[in-house]
Amino acid sequence: MFFIPAIAPLSQLPFLIPPPLLATAEAENAPLVLSGVLLSLVVIYLASKLGAEVSKRLDFPPVLGELVAGVIVGVSALHLVIFPESGLQASDSVVMSTLQWLNGLKPDVLTSVFQSQSEVISVLAELGVIILLFEIGLESDLRQLQEVGSQAVFVACVGVAVPFAAGTVGLMMLFNVSAIPAIFAGAALTATSIGITSKVLSELGRLKSKEGQIIVGAAVIDDVLGIIVLAVVASLAKTGEIDVKNVIYLIVSATAFLIGSVLLGGIFNKTFVALVDKLKTRGNIVIPAFIFAFFMAFLGNAIHLEAILGAFAAGLVLDETDARSELDELVKPIADLLVPIFFVTVGARADLSVLNPAAPENRSGLVIAVFLIAVAIVGKVVTGWAVFGQPGINRLAIGVGMIPRGEVGLVFAGIGSASGVLDKPLEAAIIIMVILTTFLAPPFLRVAFGQSEEPPTSGEPSLEAAVVNKA
Amino acid sequence: MFFIPAIAPLSQLPFLIPPPLLATAEAENAPLVLSGVLLSLVVIYLASKLGAEVSKRLDFPPVLGELVAGVIVGVSALHLVIFPESGLQASDSVVMSTLQWLNGLKPDVLTSVFQSQSEVISVLAELGVIILLFEIGLESDLRQLQEVGSQAVFVACVGVAVPFAAGTVGLMMLFNVSAIPAIFAGAALTATSIGITSKVLSELGRLKSKEGQIIVGAAVIDDVLGIIVLAVVASLAKTGEIDVKNVIYLIVSATAFLIGSVLLGGIFNKTFVALVDKLKTRGNIVIPAFIFAFFMAFLGNAIHLEAILGAFAAGLVLDETDARSELDELVKPIADLLVPIFFVTVGARADLSVLNPAAPENRSGLVIAVFLIAVAIVGKVVTGWAVFGQPGINRLAIGVGMIPRGEVGLVFAGIGSASGVLDKPLEAAIIIMVILTTFLAPPFLRVAFGQSEEPPTSGEPSLEAAVVNKA
Repeated sequence: MFFIPAIAPLSQLPFLIPPPLLATAEAENAPLVLSGVLLSLVVIYLASKLGAEVSKRLDFPPVLGELVAGVIVGVSALHLVIFPESGLQASDSVVMSTLQWLNGLKPDVLTSVFQSQSEVISVLAELGVIILLFEIGLESDLRQLQEVGSQAVFVACVGVAVPFAAGTVGLMMLFNVSAIPAIFAGAALTATSIGITSKVLSELGRLKSKEGQIIVGAAVIDDVLGIIVLAVVASLAKTGEIDVKNVIYLIVSATAFLIGSVLLGGIFNKTFVALVDKLKTRGNIVIPAFIFAFFMAFLGNAIHLEAILGAFAAGLVLDETDARSELDELVKPIADLLVPIFFVTVGARADLSVLNPAAPENRSGLVIAVFLIAVAIVGKVVTGWAVFGQPGINRLAIGVGMIPRGEVGLVFAGIGSASGVLDKPLEAAIIIMVILTTFLAPPFLRVAFGQSEEPPTSGEPSLEAAVVNKA
Repeated sequence: MFFIPAIAPLSQLPFLIPPPLLATAEAENAPLVLSGVLLSLVVIYLASKLGAEVSKRLDFPPVLGELVAGVIVGVSALHLVIFPESGLQASDSVVMSTLQWLNGLKPDVLTSVFQSQSEVISVLAELGVIILLFEIGLESDLRQLQEVGSQAVFVACVGVAVPFAAGTVGLMMLFNVSAIPAIFAGAALTATSIGITSKVLSELGRLKSKEGQIIVGAAVIDDVLGIIVLAVVASLAKTGEIDVKNVIYLIVSATAFLIGSVLLGGIFNKTFVALVDKLKTRGNIVIPAFIFAFFMAFLGNAIHLEAILGAFAAGLVLDETDARSELDELVKPIADLLVPIFFVTVGARADLSVLNPAAPENRSGLVIAVFLIAVAIVGKVVTGWAVFGQPGINRLAIGVGMIPRGEVGLVFAGIGSASGVLDKPLEAAIIIMVILTTFLAPPFLRVAFGQSEEPPTSGEPSLEAAVVNKA
């Protein structure tokens, strides 16, 4: 908020000075971090709006345009929105170079500002996906989700088991990959990206259809299963043996969390409405709702599940209250502001240079990538045929809806690479798999639903209406 | 978003490993940072709502309650919301201790998570004050502000000159303080906290009154003058001489920025409305508006003024568009979510322990503090009588409206202490002055307006109505 001219000597040695002095140095960098965040947000919003509008005019879902725009401004092309995790330096970032040009910063100050602003943008993106899932929870009908519950569980289990088994065995048999990296890559094939899937579904006006509810339900369960798989694989990679206690703990806590929040929701609903009626100052609905959503997200994180799972559960619970329609209206502009940060940064983080076949080091990765993509798509499409007792349901749409791996797959690749389990080609192959499944799923899903013989359900509520017909 | 079990060895040596590995370590800490941010936000929102509701019921402005609630959860009492800048460690933070208890973290990991989550909360608070000023810009009538322009300039100049001169001379004469620290302390008395003042004014339904417009106008100019003073004093403290080029640059750029944005606004208005009409995807009004607001805030920061000045100018410009009333409605929930973070953290950062007269080291600071508070109040109250050609205007209200120093004063204290210019008692005295002027201004302002013979202006638009009569 404030420019501090000329007083910044401490910040030149960020790693050599003790914590209190470091804190002061960081406080002095605060206006630079804010500048970096503001400029990054301007770039992200410009990219998201341009991408969404172009995509909409080409008759693609807006979210696909946001992802592509993210790729264009990100690590693969323009270097406007990049993150230190990708191995790039502050000097590679156009935003940081602009700050340097404006303020004449020393390289180490710039590196520290780059780290801080990247962390802030990352957390804003995570708040974006939390609010997206909260909104989707608000839009989801709990009773209908319970109706498709057993279907969703079955679809999710098949969708985890088939790609995991096929991927691991295939890598070991066909490519002579040793057991632990093969298991890791197989595990990276399991988790569906609920964020991308449910955004596309809502854009197609299919979130509330039976297919949509099964996909979202399965993607939620899938995420939980994915985390269990990640925990198991990570402990396997570290110790050479599976920590049974941890596996049991994760399974039990995930189940208890979802069932518990739904049961608790019945009681909390009335308290929430009564409380909102008593409040007399601004934000009387929004603040209590977000206290609940953020607390549930924290809880989801704290019991070693996912924050988005908690936010989704919070949305489900508040969906049952009388304040719902008013809350829907208030959450919309907040989601409009934060959700694009998530989608643009997912695109921005994806490094498409590993796709370039001209570089020899990419070739072995490309072959493995082709195999992984095939397993990733086939292994999820078959899940549609795991649905039972639902004659006339669009099985292809359900299977296709489970394809995108998105940010979840990228987390697998990141952890695998950080722990040294994955070599470069295998890591590259996983990243290519994630990018392609994420980018292919939206058009595939449109086609799959286009083939459906039944007309789209009419009278869809605000989220779909807002997306399809403009807010 | 993801819990990574057992793989975090790199993060144990955050200061000894090269940047790429450090980045990886930070990526691994990301779920912990998110947990910290979510829990901090829950605490901040609970505090803000409790404080605002209690304050409202005691017939005080809600923002005073948010500040007091911030003090209670902050460094002075509960240690729920604290920042490393105050010299406290991660282990002092209840939020961090909770994370440690949940995850069994090493102290150095905890310190790194504490730094990151504090930075994120700080930036969110700054985005909060940016959005607050954007909203206030939207509520302000540009033509009316121009009408009071010359008045505001005069009030601002008197309000900077009188406390600066009285404070500096008084400290040198009465307390034998040497010249440079005395000038620094005098400078800390100059800048009015536009955030707190305008929030209180809007809560009293007086933002659009002639007095309100003069106060806000003067506070804006005041802020610009304050930054010029800070730049001059900081360069004085560093080199022993004033950098004339810098002073001229700051004066020229500030003037050009405000006049430029108002003139440019007339052209941009039509482009904005035409653009918004063409957009077909969600967020068609919110995103372009925030691209403009954040870009102006960045510009304000980039030309070494203040981000909030840019956001205020952006609000002024968009206030003149046809999309205004719709935009007002959409900005409201976003402001409700982000503005309380600013007010609670201002309270949380204030260390009231320096007020305790039982500790001998506080006494010299207390005596100086009493002097500074007297100068701070009297030096601003007299500004009301600097208003000319406005018979019947509430001069006391104008003077009292200029009293709060808030976050701006705290920035002065922070910089003075970091550069070693201020000793402990003088720093403590400035902090006490800032706290008391901030806390006293809202009730004083109520009293001053209560004495006014004219009834409050009726038909105030959304911001006031929302605050006074609940949204």
